[in-house]
Amino acid sequence: MARIVDEEEKRLEVAQAAYHVIARDGLAGATMRSIAQEAGCSTGMVVHYFRTKQDVLLQAQSYATSQVRDRLVRHETDLQGMALLRATIYEVLPVDERRRSNWSIWMSFWQACPAPEAFLKEQLARVAEWHDRLGQVLSQAVEAGEISPDLDIRLEVEMLAAFIEGLAVQVVFHKRRIGRRKQRQMVDVYLLRLCSETER
Amino acid sequence: MARIVDEEEKRLEVAQAAYHVIARDGLAGATMRSIAQEAGCSTGMVVHYFRTKQDVLLQAQSYATSQVRDRLVRHETDLQGMALLRATIYEVLPVDERRRSNWSIWMSFWQACPAPEAFLKEQLARVAEWHDRLGQVLSQAVEAGEISPDLDIRLEVEMLAAFIEGLAVQVVFHKRRIGRRKQRQMVDVYLLRLCSETER
Repeated sequence: MARIVDEEEKRLEVAQAAYHVIARDGLAGATMRSIAQEAGCSTGMVVHYFRTKQDVLLQAQSYATSQVRDRLVRHETDLQGMALLRATIYEVLPVDERRRSNWSIWMSFWQACPAPEAFLKEQLARVAEWHDRLGQVLSQAVEAGEISPDLDIRLEVEMLAAFIEGLAVQVVFHKRRIGRRKQRQMVDVYLLRLCSETER
Repeated sequence: MARIVDEEEKRLEVAQAAYHVIARDGLAGATMRSIAQEAGCSTGMVVHYFRTKQDVLLQAQSYATSQVRDRLVRHETDLQGMALLRATIYEVLPVDERRRSNWSIWMSFWQACPAPEAFLKEQLARVAEWHDRLGQVLSQAVEAGEISPDLDIRLEVEMLAAFIEGLAVQVVFHKRRIGRRKQRQMVDVYLLRLCSETER
């Protein structure tokens, strides 16, 4: 029993180390060696957990996703409708090192071009999960009368997802210095316009 | 004289070939050899024009940029204000192979991670040019009374640029099948909300 727990813990530690290396140096910098160094273990140990570089990225992404998911679920217990939507978006904005790292990991999938099947599968699954989440929150907001029932929820999800990901591209890829206050302002303006459709 | 023209033409041909190879196979697939094959010339000829892979990408991007710029400038002679803004955005949406190729080239800069100085410089210059263009058109729309003078133009440019680039990410990276009609609908909804701020 203890043995299984140890294995799981060790695996998580190595995934965390991979996460930090990719966030810092990109996928190109994530060698078995640099991950071992970060994790404070032998290269053999890393190879034991990740056989290929593809595994490394997938595990690092899985670690990042589970972290973000936990935080988003916590918001769901306190908030709903537009307040939840705002909190959900604020949660993922690239406003600090941790969140920028999460985006870097996500975008490092894009650096693997042409992308292997496993990457595309993971990418599609994460995009679907994100869209579902946004769609559910938007539907809640419709039920609460905060946004118009005439809105096409699927179209709104698509637009919102594009807007948020595009914002992350500006910060993470183009290295534009858009601070927390400005990022939130952009989201607030966007959401305000979404809500004011109700008034027509 | 004829000699200079030939040199320029040949250089453009090789840049075009590089453009097509990167759009098709990504930066990783753009070898001196594959570019030579595409251009129907010798590898030595390619090396003559591009000394490094970095040069290849920069020239291919420059070729793509000048093409798009020509098209955008043409719209400026016929249209202004919101109509020009809509046409400008429609012009860059990834709705067909040519436009998706342009985005692929642009995004292949992101695949070079960590990015060399020359890439970051080119990226920043293109972003600045794009933002200036959007800002000028938005200002025209304010002058024409189509959008509210209370809008913060710089913030609007930032938001619009994020929205458009995020939309391209959905199509080009996530391979989401968002057709021309749907993409234009997203832009129309966005611009309609921008204009309706005037009504408050």
